[in-house]
Amino acid sequence: MRILLLNGPNLDLLGTREPHIYGSRSFEDYLLELRTAYPQLTFTYQQSNVEGELVDLLRRSKGEQDAVIMNPAGYSHTSVAIRDTIAVLGIPVVEVHISNIHGREEFRHHTITGGACVGVITGFGLEGYRLAVEHLLQRG
Amino acid sequence: MRILLLNGPNLDLLGTREPHIYGSRSFEDYLLELRTAYPQLTFTYQQSNVEGELVDLLRRSKGEQDAVIMNPAGYSHTSVAIRDTIAVLGIPVVEVHISNIHGREEFRHHTITGGACVGVITGFGLEGYRLAVEHLLQRG
Amino acid sequence: MRILLLNGPNLDLLGTREPHIYGSRSFEDYLLELRTAYPQLTFTYQQSNVEGELVDLLRRSKGEQDAVIMNPAGYSHTSVAIRDTIAVLGIPVVEVHISNIHGREEFRHHTITGGACVGVITGFGLEGYRLAVEHLLQRG
Amino acid sequence: MRILLLNGPNLDLLGTREPHIYGSRSFEDYLLELRTAYPQLTFTYQQSNVEGELVDLLRRSKGEQDAVIMNPAGYSHTSVAIRDTIAVLGIPVVEVHISNIHGREEFRHHTITGGACVGVITGFGLEGYRLAVEHLLQRG
Amino acid sequence: MRILLLNGPNLDLLGTREPHIYGSRSFEDYLLELRTAYPQLTFTYQQSNVEGELVDLLRRSKGEQDAVIMNPAGYSHTSVAIRDTIAVLGIPVVEVHISNIHGREEFRHHTITGGACVGVITGFGLEGYRLAVEHLLQRG
Amino acid sequence: MRILLLNGPNLDLLGTREPHIYGSRSFEDYLLELRTAYPQLTFTYQQSNVEGELVDLLRRSKGEQDAVIMNPAGYSHTSVAIRDTIAVLGIPVVEVHISNIHGREEFRHHTITGGACVGVITGFGLEGYRLAVEHLLQRG
Amino acid sequence: MRILLLNGPNLDLLGTREPHIYGSRSFEDYLLELRTAYPQLTFTYQQSNVEGELVDLLRRSKGEQDAVIMNPAGYSHTSVAIRDTIAVLGIPVVEVHISNIHGREEFRHHTITGGACVGVITGFGLEGYRLAVEHLLQRG
Amino acid sequence: MRILLLNGPNLDLLGTREPHIYGSRSFEDYLLELRTAYPQLTFTYQQSNVEGELVDLLRRSKGEQDAVIMNPAGYSHTSVAIRDTIAVLGIPVVEVHISNIHGREEFRHHTITGGACVGVITGFGLEGYRLAVEHLLQRG
Amino acid sequence: MRILLLNGPNLDLLGTREPHIYGSRSFEDYLLELRTAYPQLTFTYQQSNVEGELVDLLRRSKGEQDAVIMNPAGYSHTSVAIRDTIAVLGIPVVEVHISNIHGREEFRHHTITGGACVGVITGFGLEGYRLAVEHLLQRG
Amino acid sequence: MRILLLNGPNLDLLGTREPHIYGSRSFEDYLLELRTAYPQLTFTYQQSNVEGELVDLLRRSKGEQDAVIMNPAGYSHTSVAIRDTIAVLGIPVVEVHISNIHGREEFRHHTITGGACVGVITGFGLEGYRLAVEHLLQRG
Amino acid sequence: MRILLLNGPNLDLLGTREPHIYGSRSFEDYLLELRTAYPQLTFTYQQSNVEGELVDLLRRSKGEQDAVIMNPAGYSHTSVAIRDTIAVLGIPVVEVHISNIHGREEFRHHTITGGACVGVITGFGLEGYRLAVEHLLQRG
Amino acid sequence: MRILLLNGPNLDLLGTREPHIYGSRSFEDYLLELRTAYPQLTFTYQQSNVEGELVDLLRRSKGEQDAVIMNPAGYSHTSVAIRDTIAVLGIPVVEVHISNIHGREEFRHHTITGGACVGVITGFGLEGYRLAVEHLLQRG
Repeated sequence: MRILLLNGPNLDLLGTREPHIYGSRSFEDYLLELRTAYPQLTFTYQQSNVEGELVDLLRRSKGEQDAVIMNPAGYSHTSVAIRDTIAVLGIPVVEVHISNIHGREEFRHHTITGGACVGVITGFGLEGYRLAVEHLLQRG
Repeated sequence: MRILLLNGPNLDLLGTREPHIYGSRSFEDYLLELRTAYPQLTFTYQQSNVEGELVDLLRRSKGEQDAVIMNPAGYSHTSVAIRDTIAVLGIPVVEVHISNIHGREEFRHHTITGGACVGVITGFGLEGYRLAVEHLLQRG
Repeated sequence: MRILLLNGPNLDLLGTREPHIYGSRSFEDYLLELRTAYPQLTFTYQQSNVEGELVDLLRRSKGEQDAVIMNPAGYSHTSVAIRDTIAVLGIPVVEVHISNIHGREEFRHHTITGGACVGVITGFGLEGYRLAVEHLLQRG
Repeated sequence: MRILLLNGPNLDLLGTREPHIYGSRSFEDYLLELRTAYPQLTFTYQQSNVEGELVDLLRRSKGEQDAVIMNPAGYSHTSVAIRDTIAVLGIPVVEVHISNIHGREEFRHHTITGGACVGVITGFGLEGYRLAVEHLLQRG
Repeated sequence: MRILLLNGPNLDLLGTREPHIYGSRSFEDYLLELRTAYPQLTFTYQQSNVEGELVDLLRRSKGEQDAVIMNPAGYSHTSVAIRDTIAVLGIPVVEVHISNIHGREEFRHHTITGGACVGVITGFGLEGYRLAVEHLLQRG
Repeated sequence: MRILLLNGPNLDLLGTREPHIYGSRSFEDYLLELRTAYPQLTFTYQQSNVEGELVDLLRRSKGEQDAVIMNPAGYSHTSVAIRDTIAVLGIPVVEVHISNIHGREEFRHHTITGGACVGVITGFGLEGYRLAVEHLLQRG
Repeated sequence: MRILLLNGPNLDLLGTREPHIYGSRSFEDYLLELRTAYPQLTFTYQQSNVEGELVDLLRRSKGEQDAVIMNPAGYSHTSVAIRDTIAVLGIPVVEVHISNIHGREEFRHHTITGGACVGVITGFGLEGYRLAVEHLLQRG
Repeated sequence: MRILLLNGPNLDLLGTREPHIYGSRSFEDYLLELRTAYPQLTFTYQQSNVEGELVDLLRRSKGEQDAVIMNPAGYSHTSVAIRDTIAVLGIPVVEVHISNIHGREEFRHHTITGGACVGVITGFGLEGYRLAVEHLLQRG
Repeated sequence: MRILLLNGPNLDLLGTREPHIYGSRSFEDYLLELRTAYPQLTFTYQQSNVEGELVDLLRRSKGEQDAVIMNPAGYSHTSVAIRDTIAVLGIPVVEVHISNIHGREEFRHHTITGGACVGVITGFGLEGYRLAVEHLLQRG
Repeated sequence: MRILLLNGPNLDLLGTREPHIYGSRSFEDYLLELRTAYPQLTFTYQQSNVEGELVDLLRRSKGEQDAVIMNPAGYSHTSVAIRDTIAVLGIPVVEVHISNIHGREEFRHHTITGGACVGVITGFGLEGYRLAVEHLLQRG
Repeated sequence: MRILLLNGPNLDLLGTREPHIYGSRSFEDYLLELRTAYPQLTFTYQQSNVEGELVDLLRRSKGEQDAVIMNPAGYSHTSVAIRDTIAVLGIPVVEVHISNIHGREEFRHHTITGGACVGVITGFGLEGYRLAVEHLLQRG
Repeated sequence: MRILLLNGPNLDLLGTREPHIYGSRSFEDYLLELRTAYPQLTFTYQQSNVEGELVDLLRRSKGEQDAVIMNPAGYSHTSVAIRDTIAVLGIPVVEVHISNIHGREEFRHHTITGGACVGVITGFGLEGYRLAVEHLLQRG
């Protein structure tokens, strides 16, 4: 199974930013762990700070990937464009948020993009990506 | 690790209600699978249709359980009482929803109870409970 | 035809509370009249002040009743749990309100539970229950 | 007892429009049934697509009718003028909706006109009119 | 193809009102141009300031017309009755607004009636009607 | 000066409806008083319960009247069509309400039609019409 | 009859501010005209820019005045304190606005203070005060 | 005087939960103090986490108690059922909140249940109950 | 202990205004009772109808008073300025309302100033001030 | 006349996505038809999934194009940046939507970008672009 | 150039209140620095806690000052009266806030008074006043 | 001190667009003036119309710049992504708007990005950037 890990704005800062909160693992380190833990899976990792590039990357995943695990970060709360892309993609997309968006500021409680996904996992840190992988494996 | 699986209203109907959607597994069957898959864990399963009983059951889990996986169903969207209980419980609570609440009616988009949990998993069917278990195991 | 008459909070006070408004008939007296008027029907009467018990009573009616006439009282305006139960019940539920909720305080204008019922009858006093019976008879 | 049956916009289409939903009875056919079932009552039937004509027809019913059964259709949700007329009419008005307005689009959940009526009956198809008649009979 | 051109309140004032804005063409003059431009089409023109008459005129178009081009003017923003009529009409209705409603006062941004139409054309002056004709021709 | 007195729904009931509140004067009686008090003015009185007829009557006043005193009653709060007509009329329109709309139900606090008038007079009973006349006289 | 003319913030600027709009009459000049026109009445004129002073001035009018004509200006839209004072004053208060508040910015459409007055006159310039006097005279 | 002290969800945790905030007194300890301080009064203490049980307990207080001091906790902000019960109870109910609900999250600023009480005391810790007792004594 | 009793607009009218509701005690009479009941305390009483004077009086209380009991009346619902002053005052402020604001008009349900106080007491008439004193005594 | 056809996110998928709805024409095929139908016009086609690139492409059209036909897709509902660009562009922009946005989800009813355009055409499928061309031709 | 520095409620507390945040400079000290830094300018400093006095002080600045730098503090969010005064003042007013109002509580995000000013400077501490001076100097 | 001047959509048009409003200075010209006025500072100027590129440019400024002066233009009102980037940047960001956003359309009154900045300067034209520089200098 080929899985695209697609991260939105600032998620490439993990490991350098506020390590006391997020740990000292960069997403690349975490990716290594994922690859070790799931040798039978092919992971591609892409990150962009640009809403439309995330649309592009989602779009290009069609035919090249079997599923997408996406963290749209700040775009979750405003992007109709990403939502529409997920809705027509034809492969399953799982949305992951590192922090629990339901316990933060009011304007983060609602995810526009998540409504078009298979499901949403929020609040488990980087571990959320692995839970998404577990779902995709089980989904077969 | 001792884990309380706590279900809200109507979740005891799984397996008999709309099997073409939810499959023919009852929650009890699913529980068996969980116990088989995680023999090192102790699972307790409780269900109630009563908001205040869910408060009671949460409360009693203290000292007897190490974590809670909770699906408050319809109470997620309205219960300040359950939220307050989660907030003072002292052991981690993970909220699970079988369907993706962000893709359903407007009044299901917001989870009051989820804001007090460690995290929220929504949209993965019964599988969501296993993902919650995985998180609790990894959390240690 | 077996019909469950299911009343929510405080509806057991009828006949003692504000008789100048509601008359001196208790719901039990009224029930007697209904049984006399419709000897071919089997009426069961249950009342609870507890949201979750109303969920339970609805649930247990399945297989034992052919229809439900329900007055959720104050829970009409807030209970997603009762709405979800009605939606999966598989037998017709008619919602009755004694007063006309559309002519009272703003927060009583909207019925969450009523949206999942066959229909709603509001404003006709105890008579509303008989109208519901009439509908169920005609529905056959 | 003289009863005005007053229908708002498009309700004259019953029987020709979507017969799989509403049956093949026209309102006129239904009226015949009502007259047969209640020979002691005098029914007048009027329909208008015009908000102000409904106001006029309500107004003229005074002195000529003992009660009104009204289905304001789309005007229920917007007409302050009809509401004000009902409020000063001096004879009882019962509001009937064929479909359950509480289970349809958000903008149909609230009835402005219903707040000035004796009561509201919604969701029972044409049968709703007969329930209103039953109420008026019982009211005496 | 028979097309009803149906205008709402005040649209009969075109040509006399604010000619520096709308030009000196009356709607009748414009109609002449349309008839000349599309000799193969039969145009009927009706105008009313009355919401319910617009409902009536829409209703009567059934069987007599193949399509409707409608400018409900001020009723676009409030009329559930016209929307419901369009929804059951069975022939295509195109909504036209002379000015761009999205660039005017807040209360004109939303069109209730337009949601039940095939489509909406707004902002192109009288030319909007011809665009609607073009669509109907292409639709065949 | 020619003045059109234009009343909306139910205002023809004055004098018969709730005389303890509004006095026993009908609007016709009041009109007589106005004509006696202002012999130099020509008053025309028209009333309609139909929103669109009020639009028509406003429209026809052009060229035949020098000013309009209008009480749109329930249509004040909802009618974009009447507002638009006032805005293009070219002669001054004064809005009068018999009761003080700012002290009644929330949905009566806002007047859509009044925003297009010269001014609004509310709360002074029938006397409000005379105040409007006074303004028109002073305006010259 | 003793009448207090009570003006809120900036209304003392009349005559010097934007004379092309409001004319070159100061409120003092206008007051002279009023006194000339109604020699039988005693007018007191007070102005304050301070919300609480307006409360004080209203309060002191009790026993010394028979009625108040008040223009609370910007405080109309926000002052619960002035509204409460009007409500307990025991003599009639008429609210006057020089411009038509219903045709200006959204936040001026609603008058909190006006809801506690006898009535509201808005949009007739300084003339509005004279209309208020006319009402008070007629009221006797 | 017989007084029911009725606590809602989680208030039985006082003294064990966050003692640095609430002190180490349990509600039972506090009750002892109350009984000592007011030997002439009879206090009954009941607690429930269940909304409907609180309705039941309120209901049963009738005839057995002279007044109720209630802390509905999380149910204050959502329970129409408890509000309705208070409204028909016939003995005075005082609402107490330990923390100042007006200074916490937005969704705690409004108390539905408090609107039907004699009064509300919020923010004074356990002391609030004693203030309520003082009021009841003074009320006589 | 020195306590400032600080009243907002119209509270000096107590005893003369609506004695059937508030009793015939003026606040001065009530103050006498307080001084008699609590001879060990020093009470200062100040009242103003002016928002900013209330700010001033609060400010001057610093160093001269040990606590404040404040009834901001109508300013409770709108004054950010008073709230900010309470927040920086450094001595405890208790908010008192004579009537139960939660049971009155919607716009009185929320207290902006109360959110910055120690607590709020509402609905107990003049007695509310004594309850506030009791709290301050107990607070020590 | 040189016309830029500018499409937002996912509109390059036409013809491959859901052909039963949108037909099997790609936008390129459609463009061919347009070029054939209007040989006197020069069409440039550009598409981007990136909000800011759409701003760029609009900006570059200045001096190189005589008009723009734009379908901002999901950005219509959120992009102040695109709206501001249209407002300063200096050449006419027509907004086209393939589906009728007024008949879809609530969050698609409002177009921020459309308010700055000449006009908006919504609901006519690809045909909408030709209608826009017709307008531009007629505009000259 | 003569500049009025006009401060709203509590801003006279600077230097004594929370010195760890605002520093130990009083506004008077700061004023000294300003006068030293800009010897060519004449600064007048006024402060009031009273909304209407701020209106008065603004009003009196006309003719005596060339510009105003104003910090309305809590009145920014509620005062229509101050906004109206700024709008008619005829000399430039710059609004300054010491803290960044956009990063604080929701009810501080909007400035009513700022909409009528030349511009708003927020978040730079006392330094904000100097920035305002710089603007006025550059404006000439 | 190294300062990044970062402009959002369309701000590169200054000097060519509406010179009667903004003057004939381009931002480049203005930059020259800034460099001349502050020879001791190093200014870098970057502009992008792409939300995500603004995120990128902010991100790259870390380590290379000591501060950022940013004008996000239309993205201020919608971009959670830019806000989140500012929040984690670690160097001070000052937001500048050329026009006074508080005096324009409702949807421009709120700045999401500004809430994460040190402060916001709005309404002073290009001069706003210099004021921001002054702040950064003074901040040291």
